[in-house]
Amino acid sequence: MRLASYTIGGEQFYGAAVEGGLVPLSPLFPEWPTLRSVMAAGGLSKVLDVAAGRMPEHSVSDIVFGLPVPDSQKIICVGINYPARNDEYGDNSEAPSYPSLFVRFPGSFVGHGEDIVRPRVSDKFDYEGEIALVIGTSGRHISESDALSHVAGMTLCNDGTIRDWVRHAKFNVTQGKNFERSGSMGPWLSILQSPEQIRDIRLMTLVNGEIRQSDRTGRMTFPPERLISYISTFTELQPGDVIVTGTPTGAGARADPPIYLLPGDMVEVEADGLGVLRNRVVDEG
Amino acid sequence: MRLASYTIGGEQFYGAAVEGGLVPLSPLFPEWPTLRSVMAAGGLSKVLDVAAGRMPEHSVSDIVFGLPVPDSQKIICVGINYPARNDEYGDNSEAPSYPSLFVRFPGSFVGHGEDIVRPRVSDKFDYEGEIALVIGTSGRHISESDALSHVAGMTLCNDGTIRDWVRHAKFNVTQGKNFERSGSMGPWLSILQSPEQIRDIRLMTLVNGEIRQSDRTGRMTFPPERLISYISTFTELQPGDVIVTGTPTGAGARADPPIYLLPGDMVEVEADGLGVLRNRVVDEG
Repeated sequence: MRLASYTIGGEQFYGAAVEGGLVPLSPLFPEWPTLRSVMAAGGLSKVLDVAAGRMPEHSVSDIVFGLPVPDSQKIICVGINYPARNDEYGDNSEAPSYPSLFVRFPGSFVGHGEDIVRPRVSDKFDYEGEIALVIGTSGRHISESDALSHVAGMTLCNDGTIRDWVRHAKFNVTQGKNFERSGSMGPWLSILQSPEQIRDIRLMTLVNGEIRQSDRTGRMTFPPERLISYISTFTELQPGDVIVTGTPTGAGARADPPIYLLPGDMVEVEADGLGVLRNRVVDEG
Repeated sequence: MRLASYTIGGEQFYGAAVEGGLVPLSPLFPEWPTLRSVMAAGGLSKVLDVAAGRMPEHSVSDIVFGLPVPDSQKIICVGINYPARNDEYGDNSEAPSYPSLFVRFPGSFVGHGEDIVRPRVSDKFDYEGEIALVIGTSGRHISESDALSHVAGMTLCNDGTIRDWVRHAKFNVTQGKNFERSGSMGPWLSILQSPEQIRDIRLMTLVNGEIRQSDRTGRMTFPPERLISYISTFTELQPGDVIVTGTPTGAGARADPPIYLLPGDMVEVEADGLGVLRNRVVDEG
């Protein structure tokens, strides 16, 4: 079961993404204007129940995809999180004890199909394909064994990065990770029903059809349960919060020489069961 | 002119902080439930006009202070930002070219007078007194000369830090800066009417009445105009966004041996014209 957030002529909807289009659900739940409010009210299973058996009313060609949760209050991203496959990091360093975490604001992302923006101030625009966990149930001090029960579902993410700006400061990558519309999330929220949906799935990033990143979630340094438990040690996770779980090797900056994104390039992030997140690169106007 | 956000018996208000108490203003503007919505609607001067000449109706002893803007969508914090006064950093390093930026979530702060929380997982709880700028008018690619026109006002901040957790990862201090209720902001928003209110004011942090940090904003490595211009290069600043401008030397971690906060300690941050932000330390329950 897949839920998408989208607009038609500026009007905001959420609905079920099914074969043949979208089943609008938000008009049936005026008390819950966004998927975040659905989850905050504990209404996810009710919304999914209502969706069952209904026919699509909106065509994919008529809608604009938004972020699956357009109004997340926290988007916490993990650095790297997959081991080097070809020694491309070259430092033989041991696995870190804790994940490196940074924050992105919603405005740094667009939905599926929208253009991502290479900013005026840099030509070092790079992709990072990732899987994002969307929190459905709040919690603090969550144990690893209980962690997945707090996850509503997964989506795909291009954690688009301005490579020179992430190195502006000795610590913290904030600025290079937060250019407006430099990343993307979507196309939809795939509801988590079994751990197997996330346990060891293939994650790939393609640029203009060429595979640049490819790995399996089973190789994550910090798997989802560990991330949720660790992050909830310091902050209360809440419905709609997103944990972006890190990227495999193969980003453009690691090529020799580096290959950065250019206007017109098409970036696709895909993973087993989660669909394909597709965005074209444009220059900032 | 000073505006505070507060609750009485759980009911949320904003109002003018004057001699003798609070003038409630939110009941007069039901269309604007928070100061963020006031600013987003361009209503700040209207609200201030209405406040003029009214008498306080709420006593400070009856209210609970919240963050001046309780629902900020971005809180962007600057690392350090004052030069070493006594060589305490000891590395004779040159001033950096760009500010180091990290993000805090609203839940990591409490308002004036509330307890700040030393977490179970660490005894290395430290203070950092700072001045925060609250954005009143949205903007992107803001010039330094235009920067202060985007500022609604200033408040005080204790950027409370868990010292061992900021070093969990090689980059990024996110986790050590985001423990629930580990910092504070307030007591109120002092409306910016003249650049002199921020240009070269004294900022101090006291623990149990002893001065631990003391410096002047005129010595900032990156002054407010530069921070606003730089940050707006990558993200659109919006009403209610907060820029926490960095701390002087003198945090407890820099003492030899380090002096960390203990339950019962009273932390006070004060600055010329901005009042005193006072919070007692308690242990996590």
